[in-house]
Amino acid sequence: VRALSTTVSDRTEGELIATIQAQLRPAPSWIAVGIGDDAAVVEPERNRLEVLTVDAQVDGVHFDRHFVPADAIGHRALAVNLSDIAAMGAEPRLALLSLALPADWPLEDFERFAEGFGRLAAAHGVHVVGGNLTRTPGPLVIDVTVIGSVKRRAVLARRGARAADAVFVSGAIGSAAAGLSQLRQFGPDAPINACIERYLRPEPRVRLGTLLGRNRAASACMDLSDGLAEGAHQLAAASGVGIAIDAGVVPIEPDARAWSERCGRDPVVDAVTGGDDYELMFTCRPRLGGRFRTVARQCGLTLTNVGVCTADGLVSLERDGRSEPMPRGYGHFR
Amino acid sequence: VRALSTTVSDRTEGELIATIQAQLRPAPSWIAVGIGDDAAVVEPERNRLEVLTVDAQVDGVHFDRHFVPADAIGHRALAVNLSDIAAMGAEPRLALLSLALPADWPLEDFERFAEGFGRLAAAHGVHVVGGNLTRTPGPLVIDVTVIGSVKRRAVLARRGARAADAVFVSGAIGSAAAGLSQLRQFGPDAPINACIERYLRPEPRVRLGTLLGRNRAASACMDLSDGLAEGAHQLAAASGVGIAIDAGVVPIEPDARAWSERCGRDPVVDAVTGGDDYELMFTCRPRLGGRFRTVARQCGLTLTNVGVCTADGLVSLERDGRSEPMPRGYGHFR
Repeated sequence: VRALSTTVSDRTEGELIATIQAQLRPAPSWIAVGIGDDAAVVEPERNRLEVLTVDAQVDGVHFDRHFVPADAIGHRALAVNLSDIAAMGAEPRLALLSLALPADWPLEDFERFAEGFGRLAAAHGVHVVGGNLTRTPGPLVIDVTVIGSVKRRAVLARRGARAADAVFVSGAIGSAAAGLSQLRQFGPDAPINACIERYLRPEPRVRLGTLLGRNRAASACMDLSDGLAEGAHQLAAASGVGIAIDAGVVPIEPDARAWSERCGRDPVVDAVTGGDDYELMFTCRPRLGGRFRTVARQCGLTLTNVGVCTADGLVSLERDGRSEPMPRGYGHFR
Repeated sequence: VRALSTTVSDRTEGELIATIQAQLRPAPSWIAVGIGDDAAVVEPERNRLEVLTVDAQVDGVHFDRHFVPADAIGHRALAVNLSDIAAMGAEPRLALLSLALPADWPLEDFERFAEGFGRLAAAHGVHVVGGNLTRTPGPLVIDVTVIGSVKRRAVLARRGARAADAVFVSGAIGSAAAGLSQLRQFGPDAPINACIERYLRPEPRVRLGTLLGRNRAASACMDLSDGLAEGAHQLAAASGVGIAIDAGVVPIEPDARAWSERCGRDPVVDAVTGGDDYELMFTCRPRLGGRFRTVARQCGLTLTNVGVCTADGLVSLERDGRSEPMPRGYGHFR
């Protein structure tokens, strides 16, 4: 088989690194040694804790390069990590980018990937201080490590919720799952709509997370990478509470609802089990409503009270006056 | 095809994480939030810079799980990162472990992997604060991020060498390449010898790196992941000098030399182009020999003066009174 177009294997490692660097902003003075040495050397921020996360995106598992444009692959690979940083109440600061590249990946896609990654990094003031490039005989794998920082008193975690705390979600859920379903059905030429855009280029809720932390408005917080249902199970388990979600108020975009109905599926079940929205779910003490209102005014997002923490340890979906066990979300293994 | 033995896909993500955690030491007090939340939260060390590196190991590229035992896969995945930290003069502190697992990986191998990783982490006081698990339709990919710390005055980099500086390497080179060549030829039942052991379980030179940094004994330093030849090219380029390596004094283990000769190959070329030894190469100012001797006494390794930095910008191998261009080492891309 002859290569019909230029691929990453037509470039040296140095040339590929230069392509990525061309998308990055100049290194600030707190980076003592940046890309190009055995490791990066940076000055930590004073009087702040560090927040660290790593997430991998695998072609054919987390995305499909046949219908996800390369710039969106780059955007998503960073966004999923920024969302984790946001869920802790922290501000992202730096990233490491590790890529396992199949030899046949078109060079143009690699360039678009670097653009998408670099654009989101710039939007959040994130500096790429290092990384790794390797070839792979398998699918494209993108591993991103992001480090942020947060004041000790502003740290959010999954474990602080108590019975009677109110449960909130930001924005709308189920949109990304509807978008993915449409991309799978119609392929890369699917007419772009809000659901598809949400799947391709999710907006990590960094501003909301830092506002919740700074104002001490949330007793627990996590991001909804695997969906509201899975998130409710995990937050409940970490905090030792139950969670009852009111199906009637779950915020679902009209387009996502319409897509579920067109497919003959239950829009609420689709919305709570669908992942990839990267909204935040958080809990608030019932008496601290003033703090919540401060955050709600400043964050620029709709925040919906979707349920309440309970003492019974059960995670349930309340609909039409009845309580159903909350379904489980997506898991990579058994 | 029916699964004949238990594989990672027979376990939940939580069970796999628990398997890894069972190999780790208890979290110290500077880890405020560890494994199990959206991200880890740690307290940075005071008055030190942070050193960050990420390296990926891909089955079929960096190792082959048909002849590399699973504990050695875990050992190597961490060792290559510790070596990068050592090359900067830093002490490793924490790690993030991201795994893309093929569904057919035997559970027993996963457990051995966790043991090998955990054992080396414990030996170097490295705490795993988080990570990521995903399945993959492709080969096993292990991405490890390691963060260490170093005092500002002790930072080593590739860029500080000047003409007339002496060039040193630690230990012996070419052993790991000879070991890999034997494993490829004889398979997993190859009789274990020093070369094979060096390939399977390289010892990152952390003590040497920190001694060089603390004593300000080295003007430049890097690790030899891609071999001495490639290292010489890279250090020379970063420092803007030439490097002349004396072929007659390159330290080669007798077993590695014998293997090259048996294969009808040039032992010196094999040794300088062979990677995976994870020795350090460093340069010393000619007038600071006292500092070098302090390090040499304390590091417990043979340090060999293999050459000198030159003003001519050429990277050469001097043998039998003649100067040859230094070959290039391994590159993943063109």
